Amino acid sequence: MKAKVYVNLKSGVLDPQGKAIQHSVELLGFSGISDVRQGKYFEIALDGSVDDSQARESVEKIAREVLSNPIIEEYRVEIES
Amino acid sequence: MKAKVYVNLKSGVLDPQGKAIQHSVELLGFSGISDVRQGKYFEIALDGSVDDSQARESVEKIAREVLSNPIIEEYRVEIES
Repeated sequence: MKAKVYVNLKSGVLDPQGKAIQHSVELLGFSGISDVRQGKYFEIALDGSVDDSQARESVEKIAREVLSNPIIEEYRVEIES
Repeated sequence: MKAKVYVNLKSGVLDPQGKAIQHSVELLGFSGISDVRQGKYFEIALDGSVDDSQARESVEKIAREVLSNPIIEEYRVEIES
């Protein structure tokens, strides 16, 4: 089983790295880009000893406690069997 | 219009950051985790001046030339209208 966790900054939080990318992309001549935001993406492989609901529960906990900073970031978990 | 770009290391490439996360997660008592890999995730907002196919073309080009290192990384682009 595989889980994917997406972590990104909450919408009100300034993202200087995203702004830097946006600026570079404009300098390179790409037009029509109004905003760029950077986040993190994790692929977690789980062994066969856990079922779907246990997997979701543990991955949600890992996402909340280890992979994200809940003050400024939000996360999304997807489980693939 | 919004595009999402996922960048992750190719499967043969060592991911020390992912291994460090896996190790921490095990120390914290989570079991059943067989692998963790970290990637990057970008949200790109496009203004109304481009249509779907132009958007995909430009975002693919940005992903290839700016956001990823094609030697060790692969990317995936999703366009949301």
